[in-house]
Amino acid sequence: MKFKAEINVMPLKALLDPQGKAVTSSMKNLGLAEIENVRIGKHITLEIEATSKQEASSKVDEACKKLLANQIMESYDYTLTEA
Amino acid sequence: MKFKAEINVMPLKALLDPQGKAVTSSMKNLGLAEIENVRIGKHITLEIEATSKQEASSKVDEACKKLLANQIMESYDYTLTEA
Repeated sequence: MKFKAEINVMPLKALLDPQGKAVTSSMKNLGLAEIENVRIGKHITLEIEATSKQEASSKVDEACKKLLANQIMESYDYTLTEA
Repeated sequence: MKFKAEINVMPLKALLDPQGKAVTSSMKNLGLAEIENVRIGKHITLEIEATSKQEASSKVDEACKKLLANQIMESYDYTLTEA
């Protein structure tokens, strides 16, 4: 079976997010001062071939831990749907 | 009212995504050859003060068009929830 994963990798809440901070200030210059607390991370989509949703889930977890997210600075979550 | 927006900015399907391609090849080296078609974009969360969901939505649209997404190379979608 083929599954599609949607993964979000975000900087940990406890850490400063300089890119987000820069965008928050830019919003003011654009006349969008109502926008605040911008945080910027990565959105990753991928396809995975697996025999069960459980197997797909463990592979995606492995991919996140080994390559996609740096768990010292980032957290991740994902959703899996059958393609 | 305060709203929370979750925005995904992805490279257009028609365009090559070099970062995604690089990660797809790396998956093979990690023993995760079942993973393919990786595409990498941005995930942005922000808070917005607005009087209605409709107003919040038009502000988020404006922010995406003016700053967050380059519509020549990227597409965006978002969800708005009341915080």
